[in-house]
Amino acid sequence: MKVAIVLSGCGVFDGAEIHESVLTMLALSCAGVPYQCMAPNINQAHVINHLTGQVTEGENRNVLVESARIARGEIIDIKNADSHDYAAVFFPGGFGAAKNLSDFAFKGSACQIQPDVLHFAKAMAAAKKPACYICISPTMIPRIYGQDAKLTIGNDQATAQAIEAMGGEHIDCPVQEFVVDAERKLVSTPAYMLAQNIAEAAAGIEAAVEATLAMIATEART
Amino acid sequence: MKVAIVLSGCGVFDGAEIHESVLTMLALSCAGVPYQCMAPNINQAHVINHLTGQVTEGENRNVLVESARIARGEIIDIKNADSHDYAAVFFPGGFGAAKNLSDFAFKGSACQIQPDVLHFAKAMAAAKKPACYICISPTMIPRIYGQDAKLTIGNDQATAQAIEAMGGEHIDCPVQEFVVDAERKLVSTPAYMLAQNIAEAAAGIEAAVEATLAMIATEART
Repeated sequence: MKVAIVLSGCGVFDGAEIHESVLTMLALSCAGVPYQCMAPNINQAHVINHLTGQVTEGENRNVLVESARIARGEIIDIKNADSHDYAAVFFPGGFGAAKNLSDFAFKGSACQIQPDVLHFAKAMAAAKKPACYICISPTMIPRIYGQDAKLTIGNDQATAQAIEAMGGEHIDCPVQEFVVDAERKLVSTPAYMLAQNIAEAAAGIEAAVEATLAMIATEART
Repeated sequence: MKVAIVLSGCGVFDGAEIHESVLTMLALSCAGVPYQCMAPNINQAHVINHLTGQVTEGENRNVLVESARIARGEIIDIKNADSHDYAAVFFPGGFGAAKNLSDFAFKGSACQIQPDVLHFAKAMAAAKKPACYICISPTMIPRIYGQDAKLTIGNDQATAQAIEAMGGEHIDCPVQEFVVDAERKLVSTPAYMLAQNIAEAAAGIEAAVEATLAMIATEART
């Protein structure tokens, strides 16, 4: 049994949120669950200098190549991932989830999901495999699961309204907790949408990972 | 009271090891200890594509700018750090510690430490402030602390011999443990020099951070 972690680059402002990605890996590793990192083999929407917060004009970086930094080289192109091989899927946040995995950061409720990511996520959903969306990544849920899926991105009202406009059901949630859509085997948690420090982010992610893994266990028993 | 974390880029093969950096932050945050990230404002020795393991010819990245990805933008140039402001210092590993903070990866026992890093580390040592070196970063200890400092990088014999050639005293150590030089208030732990997964790295780093913080507490009581 192994699970998938979908990364979106390497750095909160243009890629995967590094702390959230590592905390997800840590929670899985401490639970004894092997994981496979994966990412789309596409260019990032842009490159942000994380010291200044400004776009670095003229620079291109590849999402899969940069995600490999967090994965210590152990990563595959999500296009080559077979949903049959994975018992669950985890999406850490960071702007990469809304700039590279989807274009939510640019288009809001008119967003689309990157095709390779959408294909894998939909296959996991169709197979009723548990899925855990962290931070801003739950904005992808309405496009994957259709109408009325329950989810949280914390309590940011503008983001919640965009989610509702896409047909999602947003539920406010504090940082150390998570929201469950039991029918869809969906877990979401706010992490750095609300966390004031890494210990707060860790509390919510650990709890969400545990809840997601429990859904696998439930499935295996029934 | 706050402590310093010295980063060396963002990615195990050409910068700071991301997991070790995040695990250090997590252990500090869970202990309620504020930290300030810092890095030298210099170009990386090179850029490694972490998917292929190959050097990306013609690309330059700045150590401070890339370290800012791990620090979520909250980072300063180590040249501007005043040792009086910090109760302890932490050096995560990754090849960046041996390629950017020093040139140990290229020159072995003939290595030198980057001047701004050396200045801060020596000031902390002179003030008898506790210091924690993780993974490959203990290779810097002989140049900072002089002869006979006790340290570990795990059990790699070639690296241990280079350390001994510089005057350090290498002590073999398993991944979940750490080595203490009580006189110098020095802690070191192998982390990914030995760790087979992130949970193993976390065990050693948590223990080493706790031991380092205990030295601050001891000092405050005496």
